Amino acid sequence: MKVGDTHFRSLWADPAKSRVHFIDQTRLPFAFETRSATRVEEVAEAIRVMRVRGAPLIGVAAAFGVALALEHDNSDAGLKRAVTTLKATRPTAVNLAWALDRVEAKLTGVLPHKRTELAWAEAQAIADEDVALNEAIGTHGVKLIEALYLRLKRPVNVLTHCNAGWIATVDWGTVTSPLYKAHEARIPVHVWVDETRPRNQGLLTAWELASHGVPHTLVTDNAGGHLMQRGQVDLVLVGADRVSRRGDVCNKIGTYLKALAAHANGVPFYACVPTPTIDWKVTDALAEIPIEERPADEVRIVRGLDLQGLPSQVAIASANTPVANPAFDVTPAELLTGLVTERGVFKANERDLLALWPKSQRDQAYLT
Amino acid sequence: MKVGDTHFRSLWADPAKSRVHFIDQTRLPFAFETRSATRVEEVAEAIRVMRVRGAPLIGVAAAFGVALALEHDNSDAGLKRAVTTLKATRPTAVNLAWALDRVEAKLTGVLPHKRTELAWAEAQAIADEDVALNEAIGTHGVKLIEALYLRLKRPVNVLTHCNAGWIATVDWGTVTSPLYKAHEARIPVHVWVDETRPRNQGLLTAWELASHGVPHTLVTDNAGGHLMQRGQVDLVLVGADRVSRRGDVCNKIGTYLKALAAHANGVPFYACVPTPTIDWKVTDALAEIPIEERPADEVRIVRGLDLQGLPSQVAIASANTPVANPAFDVTPAELLTGLVTERGVFKANERDLLALWPKSQRDQAYLT
Repeated sequence: MKVGDTHFRSLWADPAKSRVHFIDQTRLPFAFETRSATRVEEVAEAIRVMRVRGAPLIGVAAAFGVALALEHDNSDAGLKRAVTTLKATRPTAVNLAWALDRVEAKLTGVLPHKRTELAWAEAQAIADEDVALNEAIGTHGVKLIEALYLRLKRPVNVLTHCNAGWIATVDWGTVTSPLYKAHEARIPVHVWVDETRPRNQGLLTAWELASHGVPHTLVTDNAGGHLMQRGQVDLVLVGADRVSRRGDVCNKIGTYLKALAAHANGVPFYACVPTPTIDWKVTDALAEIPIEERPADEVRIVRGLDLQGLPSQVAIASANTPVANPAFDVTPAELLTGLVTERGVFKANERDLLALWPKSQRDQAYLT
Repeated sequence: MKVGDTHFRSLWADPAKSRVHFIDQTRLPFAFETRSATRVEEVAEAIRVMRVRGAPLIGVAAAFGVALALEHDNSDAGLKRAVTTLKATRPTAVNLAWALDRVEAKLTGVLPHKRTELAWAEAQAIADEDVALNEAIGTHGVKLIEALYLRLKRPVNVLTHCNAGWIATVDWGTVTSPLYKAHEARIPVHVWVDETRPRNQGLLTAWELASHGVPHTLVTDNAGGHLMQRGQVDLVLVGADRVSRRGDVCNKIGTYLKALAAHANGVPFYACVPTPTIDWKVTDALAEIPIEERPADEVRIVRGLDLQGLPSQVAIASANTPVANPAFDVTPAELLTGLVTERGVFKANERDLLALWPKSQRDQAYLT
């Protein structure tokens, strides 16, 4: 999407120069800076410290990471090492493993000297597919917003948690795609943006929406239940890092609390998910998906700008304050109104999902 | 309770010197500083900017504020002006209005020159009663923790939101009183402390608990649902700024989300409330209690310590990011397991509450 007057993707490759460029999201929303990587270790670092973040984007970044690795070592061992390094960066999102498995499968049985070019092409294909998937999610999701607008005849209030925006994907975003489509279609929409502690990804969402002129209001993570109770939320849209075959949604910590509030107050609650986010091997997300525990300092240290407008940080708790920092939670399928996918809007249950994705297609989705 | 080796109350008066001392809670947890006030305007400012905070404590502070005002102007007009000024500081907690009404009632029909001494005495009585009320809440509340310990035979995990600690009262605290009593009785207890954005009062709770050696872990407000889902919370204890006659609890924003999660996961959820927090005139809290909207900068600006350990702040969002900052929400009585009061533990419904507090006593509770 646009930053100023220029259209950007969140990540783009230059195979000719063996280089991958990306927006450094640890600098947002205060500074818009791009970086580049020429080695797989740099890509792994960028994923780990969340310079690139968002389930779809880290899958794409990892795929390009394999291509970079092969530039330096195209042996079987080199390929395996790259995949292992990249898989270890973040444990929760399925897209990472999915993208790596897909690239690895593509290269299996290919002679080493032919691998590199093929890896670049496959990573680029994953990136381009991601853009198409997200745009299609928008095409389906905007209908939900439009229907609410036709019924309510006033701006539609959408609440979202974390950043499932275009910078969490290659372009469009999952949650933001319907929002941008609505805005383009002149359907009035206002977005409640959850701050999303500890890393405050809501500020990225606010930055995105402000850049596009979509009306929005930042609120603390605590406020959403109150807003729903008071009828100030018409629709909740969240992203997902992994979805089970029965429709449980693993997403940023705090999503579950919003789902409970939406359910209690009759507010429709959808997860916007591209196909690769559905992990057909997982049935019960609560029991089966590992939840990443991230560093305590993410809670203790808050980054922002000082009074002079320079990047700064404060410690809100001392280093000896014990902290737990689980990064994701699971929203059981029963709390969802549905899933907005590139194929349309579906109910979140095993029967409906499996019926729409027959086994052959599920295998294809997981391993092209 | 103790700070270092010294026993403190959060606020104390020196009528001889026409002065009220208090802990400046805007400096906590980074610095322990006391302030004093000689004028009602200083007390009003301290309440408004939350140097003194917590429903019980602001009632006590306001009562002393009237005494200070009368030192300068003991006329009917002076009394009325003081009460009006103080009532306007914070709209949600009932204790503020309750304490002011009580002092005003005590002074009605009293000759101006006799008012000041009486006001000091009444404010002191309210303060001393608050200490006794909170200690009694602890005596009843600790039984809940003890029962869980006897059943679970491992440390009891209690989650709390905001700071309903001794510094939110004159001493003991509402939520912390059972925790301190448990700790004193060597019942092993571990406290999950919600950060409580935007003002991070959880850090005050963490500071209190650390000062007393009570095991605790700081978590973001987003984490509680996940912890309950995973069986890591045995009991939720929250405070209240106002409770309706049928047991709805108005408390710090975010409380409602934790109540929904507790209800969904079978975790007992209690509000710890002294009698003056029950507003017998309110039946439906959601419809009748005004919710304070606090300044946007509370969300935009985060205070803490810089890398040199000096008090500092960062802006996490720019001044033109639209922000909403509702400070409280309402948890419907149906989501509560019960209320822990100085009289014992009661179910949160109108019949049980009214039966236990017959009209004469309710009138007395509201207006001694």
